[in-house]
Amino acid sequence: MRSTSLLKVGLWTLAAAVALPATASANDELIAMEKDAKQWSQAAGNYANTRYSELKQINGSNVGSLQVAWQFSTGVLRGHEGGPLVIGDTMYIHTPFPNIVYALDLNDNGRVIWKYEPKQDPDTIPVMCCDTVNRGVSYADGKVILHQADTTVVALDAKTGKEVWKVANGDAKKGETGTSVPHIIKDKVIVGISGGEFGVRGSVTAYNLKDGSLAWRAYSMGPDSDTLLDPAKTTSLGEPVGKDSGTSTWEGDQWKIGGGTTWGWYSYDPDLDLFYYGSGNPSTWNPKQRPGDNKWSMTIFARDPDDGMAKWVYQMTPHDEWDFDGVNEMILADIDIGGKTRNVLVHFDRNGFGYTMDRATGELLVAEKYDPAVNWATHVDMKTGRPEVVAQYSTDQNGEDVNSKGICPAALGSKDQQPAAFSPKTKLFYVPTNHVCMDYEPFRVSYTAGQPYVGATLSMYPAPGGTHLGNFIAWDAATGKIVWSDPEPFSVWSGALATAGDIVFYGTLEGYLKAVDAKSGKELFKFKTPSGIIGNVNTYEHGGKQYVAVLSGVGGWAGIGLAAGLTEDTAGLGAVGAYKALNSYTQLGGVLTVFSLP
Amino acid sequence: MRSTSLLKVGLWTLAAAVALPATASANDELIAMEKDAKQWSQAAGNYANTRYSELKQINGSNVGSLQVAWQFSTGVLRGHEGGPLVIGDTMYIHTPFPNIVYALDLNDNGRVIWKYEPKQDPDTIPVMCCDTVNRGVSYADGKVILHQADTTVVALDAKTGKEVWKVANGDAKKGETGTSVPHIIKDKVIVGISGGEFGVRGSVTAYNLKDGSLAWRAYSMGPDSDTLLDPAKTTSLGEPVGKDSGTSTWEGDQWKIGGGTTWGWYSYDPDLDLFYYGSGNPSTWNPKQRPGDNKWSMTIFARDPDDGMAKWVYQMTPHDEWDFDGVNEMILADIDIGGKTRNVLVHFDRNGFGYTMDRATGELLVAEKYDPAVNWATHVDMKTGRPEVVAQYSTDQNGEDVNSKGICPAALGSKDQQPAAFSPKTKLFYVPTNHVCMDYEPFRVSYTAGQPYVGATLSMYPAPGGTHLGNFIAWDAATGKIVWSDPEPFSVWSGALATAGDIVFYGTLEGYLKAVDAKSGKELFKFKTPSGIIGNVNTYEHGGKQYVAVLSGVGGWAGIGLAAGLTEDTAGLGAVGAYKALNSYTQLGGVLTVFSLP
Repeated sequence: MRSTSLLKVGLWTLAAAVALPATASANDELIAMEKDAKQWSQAAGNYANTRYSELKQINGSNVGSLQVAWQFSTGVLRGHEGGPLVIGDTMYIHTPFPNIVYALDLNDNGRVIWKYEPKQDPDTIPVMCCDTVNRGVSYADGKVILHQADTTVVALDAKTGKEVWKVANGDAKKGETGTSVPHIIKDKVIVGISGGEFGVRGSVTAYNLKDGSLAWRAYSMGPDSDTLLDPAKTTSLGEPVGKDSGTSTWEGDQWKIGGGTTWGWYSYDPDLDLFYYGSGNPSTWNPKQRPGDNKWSMTIFARDPDDGMAKWVYQMTPHDEWDFDGVNEMILADIDIGGKTRNVLVHFDRNGFGYTMDRATGELLVAEKYDPAVNWATHVDMKTGRPEVVAQYSTDQNGEDVNSKGICPAALGSKDQQPAAFSPKTKLFYVPTNHVCMDYEPFRVSYTAGQPYVGATLSMYPAPGGTHLGNFIAWDAATGKIVWSDPEPFSVWSGALATAGDIVFYGTLEGYLKAVDAKSGKELFKFKTPSGIIGNVNTYEHGGKQYVAVLSGVGGWAGIGLAAGLTEDTAGLGAVGAYKALNSYTQLGGVLTVFSLP
Repeated sequence: MRSTSLLKVGLWTLAAAVALPATASANDELIAMEKDAKQWSQAAGNYANTRYSELKQINGSNVGSLQVAWQFSTGVLRGHEGGPLVIGDTMYIHTPFPNIVYALDLNDNGRVIWKYEPKQDPDTIPVMCCDTVNRGVSYADGKVILHQADTTVVALDAKTGKEVWKVANGDAKKGETGTSVPHIIKDKVIVGISGGEFGVRGSVTAYNLKDGSLAWRAYSMGPDSDTLLDPAKTTSLGEPVGKDSGTSTWEGDQWKIGGGTTWGWYSYDPDLDLFYYGSGNPSTWNPKQRPGDNKWSMTIFARDPDDGMAKWVYQMTPHDEWDFDGVNEMILADIDIGGKTRNVLVHFDRNGFGYTMDRATGELLVAEKYDPAVNWATHVDMKTGRPEVVAQYSTDQNGEDVNSKGICPAALGSKDQQPAAFSPKTKLFYVPTNHVCMDYEPFRVSYTAGQPYVGATLSMYPAPGGTHLGNFIAWDAATGKIVWSDPEPFSVWSGALATAGDIVFYGTLEGYLKAVDAKSGKELFKFKTPSGIIGNVNTYEHGGKQYVAVLSGVGGWAGIGLAAGLTEDTAGLGAVGAYKALNSYTQLGGVLTVFSLP
């Protein structure tokens, strides 16, 4: 199966598919650029995924007078996830399907330098589970890389917008789609894949930045030759994973449609030369249909970017029964734990636990609930790494066609794609969260390529004891404790930004951009942008002035009712009912808003 | 023909179609409301169509620090003409097709109180000549009145958005569409019709505000019983119009598909009890095909709102050869002319002449070019009221299949729908203009109901001697002179607002909201909103604070290339070529922006 896929992937670039000499140039360039706080050169601001900026012209004492500097409508409705890049005097923004990319001139209030609009089959839209989102483009070596909905990865000349190369990473007819940002690590473009609700087998694929030729592909499940796990050298909590763990934890051939898709925000440690990402839910959502741990769905991977081989793995939620994807971002930070500085990876999982791990070894240091509502497991066993599941909330134990009620969090997790930020000044993590619970009824489903393969009916609602659906929290990853928590009426579906001005920014589903004090969480600024914010906030400096930029445009899973015009409570994989009140606050529309001080 | 149409119009409201006693209540209410500068109770701010506000908290000394207070995306792309109403604590806004209406809560940053989305046949879109625009809703007597693209006029309960009544004003299958704001005068809702490019015979129809029953209809051409012209009492420049002037100036039955549509901004003088509006181009655009003066296309009408009878008429462009519609607004003002205060009507015609007339008698006082580029006529004969046409630019004299080059202005006129403002303080008119010329080649065309009936190929370009396509000017209507003129890169397709703060606002196609000094035209403020502005600026006060509001959303005839995705230079009735550079500045997207001082 793997060789067939490789052949297919390689077809468009067959002529160039010979091995190329490795070059570290792109890596060096990006490492240098992330140190220049004036630019925002990667989706997360840097390889460590901290979404932290050293800029401090805008700070706690003046952020209250922040105002809108200029705006740009993208011309596209539906959910605008991701955020802008700033490279020199140019800003690059993207849209949901049809995945337009704009290069905007910062010297002229965002005048369009070029616009790239790929031609894509609109039949791709129905196989996108959770709105037609795209999480942005990447930059390196004079190229802007876009990962289209139809899985085409295209490199554009950053100056002209002309295509340099393109390659098909998957096949939308099988439900394989592209929603995530491509990650440029060393001389490779590393892309994930979406489609866990269509039985897509997740993979991470590296293309050579120079010409788009295939370097390697690592699947989330399958034989070791597919997963690029070494039975002896790849470890999980310090122990070798053993032979073919990606097939032996599945019944029969189920791993071939096993899910574990890979659409999150990846991070990279240049010193360890490892990159980190998570895999999503096993397919189907009906756990009874797929006995076993379903490895390596729901897993954190640490891989070598040169050949894709995994150094270590850790599965947060073996045999998922709730759609608690493990795709959420891994943030790399150096923090004191027990009086010792540890090089850690921090991960806020959909399952409601915040994990702190040694990023060199995969040692589990902390695993605590970052929303007190979480009830599906009592705790994580720090020896085995396994959650202690509460029988009442086990959709597997309750069985098919039984509606398990009151499970917290809901399938969209205590956090979904909305990325957290980390400030090295406060040593705190700033996490946009969901405070949502669910009823979950699994049912038997059969697989047809390109058709939904969900197998559960869900409904969602606010966690007990209140009506609010979200919190924006500060988290101490050394102790696993919430430091402060700001309630929000709706899930905070926007990515956070922390700055050296000791303030933290985030957006809300009603459309507010907010700034809060990094130490106390006190609200210092809010502004109602044109539409709900599910994009990520960034900051940059231009002409001696600090700017803050964010995409509005409600949608995504939380906003799928508005985005796709759905009204049934259980529609949108169960999300529509919970977010109905959103319709009273905002409507669709993609707009970039750039803020500055007067 | 008339009785058939009346029957059809009345069908939906047959039960209520009995005669109702006249009531002046709505009139009194609106007259009272327009005196309350805190509200913006009519599309133009008042019956006189001055778009002037007594508010002056925002003035020349502080407008430079104006900033965005809050925003609301409408969820609709394409051109957003018109502007918001403010009634008490509620703002009402509308969208292009599908003509959604929102009631927004001013006490909560524009939270949606209700949303009304009519169901309309999407086949209406192709019969809208110049984008899917709508110019707004009206308010009176607890009702919000919407004129849909498919010509349905619907009254909504202002508190709940529920339908109170609705009536079909025309038939989109014949090319009849609704784009204009309904005008509420006394106890009537008076609506025009669009479709001059489809051979629609223009009419103005009055429905009773109470229940939507038909009161009267007056056609632009046809026998006197259709036009509601009295051969003896209705005058044109002081002379009785004579019998059946609306058929005798046409060849055969051509008046039945004669155009003269009526989609502009109407004004009303309560003292004279007359309302004023203009009619558009005669159909087809090929003048050779319709000999005669083609009355009463291209005409200013002064009518009695109770029975529709015309008191006077004046045809600006007899036998049009350039699509110089006469629909542009009539502004009512009292100004000194020759040492005497005159109650005038001022009209900036598409043909490039600014007309000042006695609004009681229809006496022509001034007719001068408000763009020096105008070349199709040397002047207007003040006795006959007829323009002196320059043979070189006569598309009729040059004949069919001959490309007449260098005609100024272009078909979209020196001004189109973008309404001007008048300040009683400065006594100046502030006029958003086009500075565009054209080549025009008429050709023979045959009529088929519901199909385009244009008969000319056009291309447009900047007026000679420059590259800019617009000017924002101040005009002295007493002398017919330009007082100052601010060049703009593109046509100023937005409506102006003048205030007692001695500032004037307008929007630009690139998306800037600008404020200029009312006396000098000096730019005091500009801000780049999300998309090009073709909407009209308004102002209101809420909670003791003055706000300025405008809809962005590029489109309309000038923006039709962007709105409809057209790229051929001669597409969009010749407009696409001239405005191509617009694509570099802005993209589609409807957003309300509300500004205030910090």
